[in-house]
Amino acid sequence: MPATSAVDAEDFVTRVRDSFALQGAMQTLGAQLSRVEPGMVDIGLEWAPGLTQQHGFVHAGMVSTALDSACGYAGLTLMPADAAVLTIEFKVNLLAPAKGQSFRMEGRVVKPGRTITVTEGRAYAIDQGREKLIATMACTLMCVQNREGLHN
Amino acid sequence: MPATSAVDAEDFVTRVRDSFALQGAMQTLGAQLSRVEPGMVDIGLEWAPGLTQQHGFVHAGMVSTALDSACGYAGLTLMPADAAVLTIEFKVNLLAPAKGQSFRMEGRVVKPGRTITVTEGRAYAIDQGREKLIATMACTLMCVQNREGLHN
Amino acid sequence: MPATSAVDAEDFVTRVRDSFALQGAMQTLGAQLSRVEPGMVDIGLEWAPGLTQQHGFVHAGMVSTALDSACGYAGLTLMPADAAVLTIEFKVNLLAPAKGQSFRMEGRVVKPGRTITVTEGRAYAIDQGREKLIATMACTLMCVQNREGLHN
Amino acid sequence: MPATSAVDAEDFVTRVRDSFALQGAMQTLGAQLSRVEPGMVDIGLEWAPGLTQQHGFVHAGMVSTALDSACGYAGLTLMPADAAVLTIEFKVNLLAPAKGQSFRMEGRVVKPGRTITVTEGRAYAIDQGREKLIATMACTLMCVQNREGLHN
Repeated sequence: MPATSAVDAEDFVTRVRDSFALQGAMQTLGAQLSRVEPGMVDIGLEWAPGLTQQHGFVHAGMVSTALDSACGYAGLTLMPADAAVLTIEFKVNLLAPAKGQSFRMEGRVVKPGRTITVTEGRAYAIDQGREKLIATMACTLMCVQNREGLHN
Repeated sequence: MPATSAVDAEDFVTRVRDSFALQGAMQTLGAQLSRVEPGMVDIGLEWAPGLTQQHGFVHAGMVSTALDSACGYAGLTLMPADAAVLTIEFKVNLLAPAKGQSFRMEGRVVKPGRTITVTEGRAYAIDQGREKLIATMACTLMCVQNREGLHN
Repeated sequence: MPATSAVDAEDFVTRVRDSFALQGAMQTLGAQLSRVEPGMVDIGLEWAPGLTQQHGFVHAGMVSTALDSACGYAGLTLMPADAAVLTIEFKVNLLAPAKGQSFRMEGRVVKPGRTITVTEGRAYAIDQGREKLIATMACTLMCVQNREGLHN
Repeated sequence: MPATSAVDAEDFVTRVRDSFALQGAMQTLGAQLSRVEPGMVDIGLEWAPGLTQQHGFVHAGMVSTALDSACGYAGLTLMPADAAVLTIEFKVNLLAPAKGQSFRMEGRVVKPGRTITVTEGRAYAIDQGREKLIATMACTLMCVQNREGLHN
């Protein structure tokens, strides 16, 4: 019989995967959870025509969508089992065009908190096998336990 | 025969519409340009399962994608005819869940500039006929004329 | 004898003024509260050599300091009498150098909330009698009632 | 006789120090340049009553002022000798109250560019000898070489 902490550890992976599977937006992006650890979540996706801006690169908003999910789920890994995570705000700096065949988004918790959790994200493009940092995100999350919602 | 300014006016509408049509991401969102005026662009979209987060509302990233395009095209309306617009960064505050049947994103130029243009966006959800402000954006654009790109 | 709402109205002005008077930073800036209404606070300040950056204009950080206080107190006007206000994060866009003899900072509540309040700020420089928008802020506040603090 | 690169290296330190000395705001903060290397600048300051918010901690705006200077000068170290640096925008997350006897602000270049440079800042409080991360910043800079200014 597993110890409580092992159960909890398994639990947060399950909670992240179950929630991720419910996000239609992640299916639209063709996004995959590639890493789920305490305070750390990575999401991968492939270039597709439905994700592009006018020059054929991935739209900054689509990059931000995946980064936001990576940051949000990184925060969720450290929250109580009955908690929901809400993004209060995020800010993204676009360092270079999202040019590549595939992309990796990293979400990392900088400061966990009972109510507010601050995270950071990094987006990398893999272009012809070379990886390049293309965007950074700062993302603020709220832990909602009683389901009363964010702005009541 | 139209005066030069009228030609220019028509020209920016065409440039915005042509660029918008090239954004695969806007087709994925089912987004439509509903207003294109100097310094002002509105984008509308309908709820769809492929845009959702885990609670069935539109994903904050998808809201941001449409807001980013609204802000970027608002900036483009005031740029020279041979210019391209790049988003340098944006920040979004999520005021309420994106709950509704349709959504309207407003992009407005706060400060145009030769190199840097600052814009603001507002996202509204229309739910059972009632409109509600659900997100605000601050978005910084760069005007690129020589196609050398943002970060060279 | 005043009605309860009038007492409350007076009360938030007193609470804002008392808190403002405790901010050593506002004295350093020579800042004055020029408007305190529900959801709206204005702060004025004069140019001074101790506020400058290398070109003699007011430092963007000093502009942000006054904007942050304007936003924070705008939020406080709508919070319960026993609440404290904390800034979770803010983002400022600097539209033009802070060049002028005096400055007015406006803080406005966009979305009040039980826990999270979202505000916006605008900074104006008055230069030779002409007013100019020099900065915009988006600022997220937290209402803390039980004094347990933001990040426990 | 020093090689060109050594001269350049010395040059950026001189340029940063000369510019820093002109910032009245840094004198008001009692701030000191504690590190000036390519792409990296640290600034230190001590608690003082003129820097405080209503609870006696250092005002978030004052923390941001020092962080903005650290980020701006980190960017300047990588810019041409005749360039001026302008902050276009910054965003700060406040992770914990600025409680301590002294503070260290780190500015780091994430992505240098000919026109746009993206930087990140971290603020640490030293309280009773223990160091704590209290704030993070994302700061976007513009390199201005022809002195025509940011928004013409």
